[in-house]
Order: sequence, then C-alpha cells, then structure tokens
Amino acid sequence: MIVEMKIGASQEEINGVVQRAKSLGLGVQLNLGTNKTVVAILGPDTGQLSTDAFGVLPGVERVTRIMKPYKLASREFKPVDTIVSVNGIQIGGKRVVVMAGPCAVEDDKQLMATAMVVKEAGACILRGGAYKPRTSPFAFQGLEESGLKLLRQSKEQFDLPVVTEVVDPHEVTKVAQYADILQVGARNMQNYALLREIGKSRHPVLLKRGLSATVAEWLTAADYLLAGGNDQVILCERGIRTFEDTTRFSMDIGSIPVIKKFSHLPLVVDPSHAAGHYSLVPALAKAAVAAGADGLLIEVHPNPKDALVDGLQSLTPSDFARLMQELRPIAEAVDRYM
Amino acid sequence: MIVEMKIGASQEEINGVVQRAKSLGLGVQLNLGTNKTVVAILGPDTGQLSTDAFGVLPGVERVTRIMKPYKLASREFKPVDTIVSVNGIQIGGKRVVVMAGPCAVEDDKQLMATAMVVKEAGACILRGGAYKPRTSPFAFQGLEESGLKLLRQSKEQFDLPVVTEVVDPHEVTKVAQYADILQVGARNMQNYALLREIGKSRHPVLLKRGLSATVAEWLTAADYLLAGGNDQVILCERGIRTFEDTTRFSMDIGSIPVIKKFSHLPLVVDPSHAAGHYSLVPALAKAAVAAGADGLLIEVHPNPKDALVDGLQSLTPSDFARLMQELRPIAEAVDRYM
Amino acid sequence: MIVEMKIGASQEEINGVVQRAKSLGLGVQLNLGTNKTVVAILGPDTGQLSTDAFGVLPGVERVTRIMKPYKLASREFKPVDTIVSVNGIQIGGKRVVVMAGPCAVEDDKQLMATAMVVKEAGACILRGGAYKPRTSPFAFQGLEESGLKLLRQSKEQFDLPVVTEVVDPHEVTKVAQYADILQVGARNMQNYALLREIGKSRHPVLLKRGLSATVAEWLTAADYLLAGGNDQVILCERGIRTFEDTTRFSMDIGSIPVIKKFSHLPLVVDPSHAAGHYSLVPALAKAAVAAGADGLLIEVHPNPKDALVDGLQSLTPSDFARLMQELRPIAEAVDRYM
Amino acid sequence: MIVEMKIGASQEEINGVVQRAKSLGLGVQLNLGTNKTVVAILGPDTGQLSTDAFGVLPGVERVTRIMKPYKLASREFKPVDTIVSVNGIQIGGKRVVVMAGPCAVEDDKQLMATAMVVKEAGACILRGGAYKPRTSPFAFQGLEESGLKLLRQSKEQFDLPVVTEVVDPHEVTKVAQYADILQVGARNMQNYALLREIGKSRHPVLLKRGLSATVAEWLTAADYLLAGGNDQVILCERGIRTFEDTTRFSMDIGSIPVIKKFSHLPLVVDPSHAAGHYSLVPALAKAAVAAGADGLLIEVHPNPKDALVDGLQSLTPSDFARLMQELRPIAEAVDRYM
Repeated sequence: MIVEMKIGASQEEINGVVQRAKSLGLGVQLNLGTNKTVVAILGPDTGQLSTDAFGVLPGVERVTRIMKPYKLASREFKPVDTIVSVNGIQIGGKRVVVMAGPCAVEDDKQLMATAMVVKEAGACILRGGAYKPRTSPFAFQGLEESGLKLLRQSKEQFDLPVVTEVVDPHEVTKVAQYADILQVGARNMQNYALLREIGKSRHPVLLKRGLSATVAEWLTAADYLLAGGNDQVILCERGIRTFEDTTRFSMDIGSIPVIKKFSHLPLVVDPSHAAGHYSLVPALAKAAVAAGADGLLIEVHPNPKDALVDGLQSLTPSDFARLMQELRPIAEAVDRYM
Repeated sequence: MIVEMKIGASQEEINGVVQRAKSLGLGVQLNLGTNKTVVAILGPDTGQLSTDAFGVLPGVERVTRIMKPYKLASREFKPVDTIVSVNGIQIGGKRVVVMAGPCAVEDDKQLMATAMVVKEAGACILRGGAYKPRTSPFAFQGLEESGLKLLRQSKEQFDLPVVTEVVDPHEVTKVAQYADILQVGARNMQNYALLREIGKSRHPVLLKRGLSATVAEWLTAADYLLAGGNDQVILCERGIRTFEDTTRFSMDIGSIPVIKKFSHLPLVVDPSHAAGHYSLVPALAKAAVAAGADGLLIEVHPNPKDALVDGLQSLTPSDFARLMQELRPIAEAVDRYM
Repeated sequence: MIVEMKIGASQEEINGVVQRAKSLGLGVQLNLGTNKTVVAILGPDTGQLSTDAFGVLPGVERVTRIMKPYKLASREFKPVDTIVSVNGIQIGGKRVVVMAGPCAVEDDKQLMATAMVVKEAGACILRGGAYKPRTSPFAFQGLEESGLKLLRQSKEQFDLPVVTEVVDPHEVTKVAQYADILQVGARNMQNYALLREIGKSRHPVLLKRGLSATVAEWLTAADYLLAGGNDQVILCERGIRTFEDTTRFSMDIGSIPVIKKFSHLPLVVDPSHAAGHYSLVPALAKAAVAAGADGLLIEVHPNPKDALVDGLQSLTPSDFARLMQELRPIAEAVDRYM
Repeated sequence: MIVEMKIGASQEEINGVVQRAKSLGLGVQLNLGTNKTVVAILGPDTGQLSTDAFGVLPGVERVTRIMKPYKLASREFKPVDTIVSVNGIQIGGKRVVVMAGPCAVEDDKQLMATAMVVKEAGACILRGGAYKPRTSPFAFQGLEESGLKLLRQSKEQFDLPVVTEVVDPHEVTKVAQYADILQVGARNMQNYALLREIGKSRHPVLLKRGLSATVAEWLTAADYLLAGGNDQVILCERGIRTFEDTTRFSMDIGSIPVIKKFSHLPLVVDPSHAAGHYSLVPALAKAAVAAGADGLLIEVHPNPKDALVDGLQSLTPSDFARLMQELRPIAEAVDRYM
C-alpha cells in the first residue's frame, strides 16, 4: 500500500502514518521525494486492508493499493490450476465442458426433450432454472421445488449432472439435494448471506460475474466461498454492462486470459446472456473457446418461440447441434477437446 | 410494443405476430411502410411483457418497448406524490429530511456520541449499519443483533428514528422490531427473495439504487415492494458505476428530476457513498438539495480516523454541523426547509 | 511511480528496473517486502512518464502511477485560481457567468431574438454554433462563416461577447476574428492538431470534457493548450456516457468539487447537453451552481419546436428567464452572485 | 419513428404531430391505445431524422427511433459484403489479413527489422504510426513526414502495403501519397472535418471505433466516408471504455457478429490496444478470428523494452511468429485461411 503525502505535509503527519502502520503490525519504508513524501506500507495482508485506514489521516493526499484485494482465489496463493470434478466430469482440465439446457424449467416434457437433445449433441451437464430471479414481479418466477424434482428426474434418465440456481441462503441445503452444481446468479454475486451459506457446504458452485463487477470484485466474492471452506468454485463470465446496446451485455472476452493469469479457478462462459439474441451466440461461443474458456453455459430450448423466459437468446436443438460441431475444431486448435 | 419486421418478411410471418398478440389478449395495428412492415402491439400491460414474446418469431427484426417496464412505481399509475411518514417525520413533503450517522455501529460510545451531534446539528433520523455487506470476507462484518439493540437505545435516548440495513430475507421481521426504516443496500437491489419478504411487511423501506442499475430497473425493483402491498417506499440515489475514478461512484444527479417526473415515490440522496471522500461530500449534498432531493443520507463519525468502515467518506461532527448550516439557504432557495 | 516485481523476481531483474530509472534521470528506493520487492521511482516528472517504461521490463508484475499525468493544469503547479477575463467579464471569480443562446445559428432573426432575450434575462455571454459537428452526414452542418458574421453582429448590437465552436485546426485564426471564446467540442477534446493550434493563440478557450474522458484525461488535454502558451483556459463539464438512458448523458456533478480540488482552472457546466430534455435542464443547472460551478452554458431558442438542432434540450425564452430567477438565490446561498 | 403521446394529450396536440410529419413528407399511422395515443411516422429516411423533430412538440411523451441512424453502411442498403482490395490483398474475403508493425515508426533500423520479421511470419500489411496523437503534450509525437518516408521505403523493400494514421484534414493528400490505407484513430472517429476530407479521396481507409462509440455511431461515422464517395472503408474494433481495469480497454467481441449482421463493411480487430499488455494479446487475437473478424491489427516491436510508445502491448518477433502459427488452425476451423 502506497501512501502519498500532500506537498508540504508536516513531520508530525508523516509520523501519524508510520504509527498507524506499526499499530497494524505493518512495516514502513519512507520515500522522501523532491517535493513530496511517499510512504510504502509493507506486509503480506495489505491487500485485504482498507485504503481508508491511511486515507483518513491528516496530511495524506492519496492511498494506492498494490496488493490485490483477493487472496484465496489468487494464483499467488495457489499456483496450480483448480479442477472441479462433478460426477467424474472435470471442469478446468483439457476438456471444454458444455452445460446446456433451458433458461427456466417449464414442465416435464420441455425438460426431457431438451435434456435428450443436448446430451446427444455432446453437452455433458444440464442447466435449467427452478428459481428465477426476474426483473419484474409480474413475470414468471420459476417452478421452484417441483422444478428441482424435474431436474433430478432428467439427470437420472439421461445421466446428466445438473446445474441450477439458488437464490435464498435458507434454501442452499434443499437445492443441494437436487443439484450437482449450485449456481450463484449475477445479481447475487455480492449477496454475502448467500455466499457464506454456500461456503459452508462442500458442493460445487458456479459463481456468475456480477453485471458490473470488476474482475477483482468477482475474485473477492469467490474468496467468500473459499474462506468458508468450499474449494469447488467455478467462475462464469456472462457479460458486463456497458453503453453498447446491440447486445444485451458486453461479453468481456479479456476476462478469460486475465482470470487464467491471476487466478487458479476454472472459468466457463455464458454466451447466451451476453448476446441476448440467438443469432449472436455462436460467434461468442467460438470466441470463448478460442480464448481459453474451460467450458460454456448455453441456453437451448426445444421451441424457443414458446419459451416462458429468454426465448430470444435460446438456441434450437438443431442450431445447438451445429454449433457443437463447429466448436470441436476450434477446441482442437487450442489443444483442447469437447 | 413495436415489432419491426425484416425487409421482405412474408405475409405468413406478419400473421404469426398478429396471432401471438391476439393470443395474449393484445390489440394490433399494422403499419405498412415503403419497404418494411411495423406492427404496433397495443394494451395496458405491454410494459410488463417481455419483448422476447415477439422477438423470437420468424421474420421479426427488432422489438422496441414503448410502455415502461415498471407500473406501480410510475406517476402514470399514481399521479400524486407519495409521502412516507416515520414517527411523524414526513419524507417527500416540504422538509428536506437529513438522515445521518456512522456507516457501521461500532459500540455504545461511538453511537451515542454520533446520535447526539447529528441531532443537535439538525438531522432527524439516525443511520447506522448493524449488518455490513463487505466486499472482502476478511473485513469487519458488523455487530449484528447487538448493533440493532444499540440503535434502539440511541433512538430512545435522543428521540431519533432509525434506518438500518437488512441483508437476509429471514431477518426482516427481527430487524423491523428495532428499525423504523429498513434499508435495502445497493448490492441487494435485485435480491428478489429479500424484496418479496419486505414487500409483505408494512414497514417503511429505503431502496438504494443498484450500482449499475438503470432508473427503470430501480423503479421495477420498487414494484416488487409495492406489489407485495408495502407502499412505504423511499428511493435512495447513491451513485452509479462509471469509468471515472476520482470519485468512488458517479452520483447521478439527473436521476433526481427524472424520478420526480416518472415516479410518485420520495427520493433521498446519499452523497457519502458517491463521493468516497469527505472533502467532496458537501458539494454533492448541496447539489442534491438544489436539484430537488427530498432528503439526504450522510455518514458522520465522531472520529473518522478510527472508524472501522468507510472513515474516509465520513464527516466529522463539526464538518457536518457546518454543512447543515450551508444547506439551509439552498433548501430555502428551492422553496423547501430543513 | 511504483514498480511491483513478480514474486521470486531475480536480483538481475530488479537491477534492470533500477538501471532504467537511473538512465531516465530518476531516483529509486527499494522496498523489500516479505515476498515481493516493490521499487519506488522518484522524480518530479514521473507523472508524464509512461508506465510502460517499466512495465515492459522482465520480472515486473505491475506499475502504478502515483503522480498525476497532467501538470500545468494542476493546482500543485499553480495554487491560485485562474480567472479568465472576456470583455471585462471574469470567469472564475465570484460571479456565476451564464452563457446562453441557440445550439446552432440558423438565421439573422433567430439569433437576434435569442440574444435579446438572454441578455434581458441576465446572461452575459452569447453562445451559438456556426460549425456543427453532427453525428450524421445527412444532418444540418451549420451556416459556417456567415454564421460567424451573424454572431459578430449580435455581439455588437447587444454588447454580448460570443463563444462558438471551432472544428478545424486551419480555421482557428478565422474563428478567432469573430469569437471572444473559442469552444473545443466534446468530440474534439483529444483532437491534438486542433488543441496545438489553439494553444498557439492567446484567445480564451472553452474546453468541453470528452464524453467518455476521465477528469485526468480532460486536464491532460488542457495541458496541451497550456503547454502551447495559452493560459486562458475554461473547462466545461457536459455529461459523460454511462449505461443510463433517461438522460442524454450523465452529468458528472462530482467533477465540480474534484476539478476545484485538483486544478486552478475555471469550470462551467452545460446542463443542456447532459439532460437532453428541456424539462430536466433547470434541476441540473441548479445543482451545478450549488456544487460550485463558475458558470453555465445553456441552450435557449426562441421557438424550440422549429429549431434545426437540439430543439428538445433548448429552453424557451420564458423558461430561461424563470430559471435565471430561480438560480439567483442558489448562487447567493453559496456566496456567489449572477 | 414512434411518437408516444402523453396520457390525456389533446386532439390538437395529436394533430400537431401529424402535421409536422406531413410537412416533412412523411406518412403517419395513428394507434389509439386504451389510455394513450401512439403515432407511427413512416418513410424511408426516418432513421436520419432527429427524434427531436417530434420530441419538441406539445403533448409528446417520448420518441423512439425504429430505423437505424446509419444508411450507406447498412446491410439493408447493400446486402453484399464489401471487399476492399489493397495491392491485390483482399480485406473482407476468405483470407484473414494480418496487419502488423510497431505502434510508432522510430527509425530506419527499427522499422526495417520489424517489417522483415512480420513479413516472414505471415503478415501482409505493415502498420506504423508517423503522426502519434498522444494523451500528454510532453510525450513523443511521432517522426511525421520522415516517418512516412521510412514506411514507403520498407514497403518497397519488403513488398508490404502500409497502413498509417492521418490526424489533420489538411494532411490527407500528403499521407495518401505514402500510405496504402489511411487510418482514422479512435479519438478521431467523430472528427468530421477529417472524415469529410478522407471521404473525398478514393483511398482505402481503416476507421477505428471510438473508445466510447456505440456500433450505431461507428457505422454512422462510416456513413460520412461513404457519403463523400469513398467506398473503400474497413472498420476496426479496438476495445471500448468500461469500468474494468485489468485490461486497457474491453474488447467488444460482440461487435464482430453484430457488424456482420447489420453492415456490409469488412472488419478487422486490434487486440493490442484492447489488451494493453502483451501477455493478453494472443487470447484476444484468437477470439477475434474465431468470432469472424476479417483481419487483425497487431503491434510488434523488435525490442519492446526500448519502444518509444506502447511497448507493453507490443509482441516480440518470436511471440508474434508463434501467435501466427497458433492462429492458422483457428482460421481453418472457421473456414478461413491466413
């Protein structure tokens, strides 16, 4: 942490900074510049310390954090890639893992039809929402527990592990009974009550990036899960909010190499929510695989025209099957397989 | 809702749009342009309908929503200003209501000292966090229920109603026993499990704008509370996330006249979180009052240097008292009082 | 400038950083942390040095700039407020200076009518565009030199100095013959060919903030003007681009206290372009004055319904006159006058 | 264009809208909803018309544009892909065209060394800046005309056509004598004086996306070039400004399928400026090719450690050669070649 003093800061003010550092058990090195003093605060946990601790002191102009705010999710903390294993499927290994299915579980028929086609086309995990956090209170809110039961049923019938969202801290245990991977949605990335509860479980969890979260905040949210003892964490990039409006969100393709550089956690990409329109999904999916994503989360619906939620961004079974065919050579081009 | 067909869309595709509208109980008017057909979908609730309902149909180029997605929070729904009354204090009336206090409740002494000075300076509601949603799991998380008890105590001692944050849907009833106004934090603006629970209560609630929420999304989140039957809703602008980094967030001053134009709900402004630095808080507070805010939410700490949370953006008691003095003539200049 | 080495960086790599600093005439101080080395680079001009100079060296993890990138525009460089004097009107003094007029000069009648009413209402500088940088090539592009002549004429008739935009570096001399203040538009904030040419003149210049420029970039653009020798620089905040779409841009009210803190240059605010709608302009104008702006730039049109450009954000003469009345007590409340 | 009247708008106000439409030669269709009237304005050029034309009329609530603001750049205007031919190299065809070279031309030796290695590795166009628009006036501003001469020399020696930036409208003719492709930089995307001048030439032009420009604005800027008669336009995505700070800009990968869907113009991608760091460039380059880019613009420097500009984002010759090897199978996987 670098504390820049104001021009003309007094010796007493500089001492104040030094004393605060010492009281926090931190080391100090003074840099006496030509016209201002800069104090370097040294210690292994300065990344987790608020910059305010020094910013509030008299004579301080600005405090800059050097250490990253996240710790357990960092590659510095754990240099080796984390691989999350779900029913024998490894996420974070050489295989690019495709999770596919409808946005929302609507009924038995819809789910079984989708499970069958995505399995056939090569997906190895089934996605589907039973609890739907919807922007408007007047919109369809999901089948809830009966949706979970349908997911379990299709899992058994098609041997497809299931990823589904949990939205309430008090439902973590229940959802975990049905799901193989718990999903934390973008709007809940900083719902700490929820993160803490999932951190206590040992269930694999897919943590979606908040729609305006920085990479550092996303990894710090992952720290909540890891700090609780749950090390089965998968990250999911799903687009960020920008001024651009031709896509629903702007998929941050740069986050893929950035996460690979700074974190050990596996990363899957959701091109469906980023695109917002089925015609744009294939290009985003291909880009994600080429850039090094460990997996994809894709919305597929047997009949998008009648989908209750997000039909416009859902692929038809035939479009999904074709996309899977097109993705394979790209995966091979980057030394992966599907 | 306006459905723009692709150039050369077939009659059958146009019919498909018309039939879907009819099946949803909506009216239709065809606009046959020179080279493309545009279908207007008519009905009172098209604002709550997903544009996907038409976007997924073959031959459709684009769907544009004309009606706003929120309903109960709109001025069209309720033309008269809502006034929320808290212990006789009216929020949304002629008085600019100041809520002040520490970011986090730290201990008895800190809270009582702050309550005394903010009361003296003219604040009429005490703020203070007992449950603190913190970005890092390693940071101070609040005193929880014992913090609530301290808030209740200072309320009784200084006759100051209390606003405090609730973060877990299962704690709404408990927090409501202590607090006069329940606060929904920015990171929880779209935590629908929480909103639904608060919607069931009849307790005044302060709904902070999400840090990347549009005004329309914010008012739609308010619809969750209103749809549950809780009409004691106060909005709180606290800055949005932009690329600018000299302030912690960018206070969206434009949201004040926009909310006043499109909604009937009262609006307070939190200049402390937007600014991120005490030296910038007064200018933002003055601007908010001049632009028509119904109140302010300001962080004050008896000793910011030793604050456990957000000390850098907290005013000292003397700075707060001076600011209150400076705000009064501005309030009068816009025909309000403090 | 702070150079953070990778964990395990070699002594040779550290030496590489030290040697580069010395070759650039800079001082160095080594901070040997517990698990990584941080090198502070010291010198008065490190703000203007690219962080790449060190970032490219082997073993370097990250480089953080401590000094600001701008220099001549900074309050550190010149602690005393700059006051720009235009025909005896001081911008940056106690008076809040209002510049008003149509977006585009359309014809003799329109301009004279506007000049008369804005003068009467209390504006002291006339604005009007003769060269209009329009988003679409099919839109009205301005009257060009005949527009300049009309501006000059109305100046003489009403004793109102004129501010108008210049868009081509080769027209700076010509426009300066007619205008009292040269305006650099938001889209040209980083048009360095233009800035350099205006920097050579000694004409007052109003530098609009680029629509996605940070405050630091804006002040660095001002450095271009100041470095050329032109110290008659006025800054103009006009809203930044964000995801919010109920206003045309998001007026960055925080930039007012930030500029006052970090720069000596006067700052006016353009609420018209930020708002994009006449009904929102008064609230933004009031907020700007309350927050400490030195002036306002407001669009007024005698008949907005027939304006060729930006009619929707133009005030009518009577709305403008009422706004001026409403602004006066706010100016007085912050110890200014109009 | 859709004009939504206020609830309770009078018949006279509705007539006002109808009359304005007729006076502009446009058709009208009234949609009388249950509680508000919506007027559809019909005509082939409503995309180029300002929404203000109707927004300013009394009784109007909001105006929504349905037609896109750009025209000549749209696929509706020209359904067939444009292919720009530069010295026999086709941009927009099956070949993914790589343009590579240093950010800035520094001297004879640097440029020749780079030209040789990029040619050898498979690049077919040489990039290099002679005029450098730099954020700070104190930074290196380019070799100017002598840089152009060096570019011409290396073109002749290595048979590599050259792309270089032009920053001043009055230098278009001069730069066109040396360059095969004129580059319009991101900061000049809306420098209309420059666009108009290049529009008059018939020289191929590479139009970089402005760093906060929407796709619609970018294509409208292309309209300036096309409207002047220059149909040799290549678009270049180079990242947009967002809140994320681990990359210099956020590469908008979604713009690739969006541009392919809505425009006929070829599109190249600049991963170097988006990434800001050499270690992130390969992943972005691969993603761009997988998503369907027609080419890449990559910074290569023989010795990035000593580059005068942007060394941190420049690849070394060996990194570039390896990247070219890695890109080939990806190009083939999407049915292209390099």
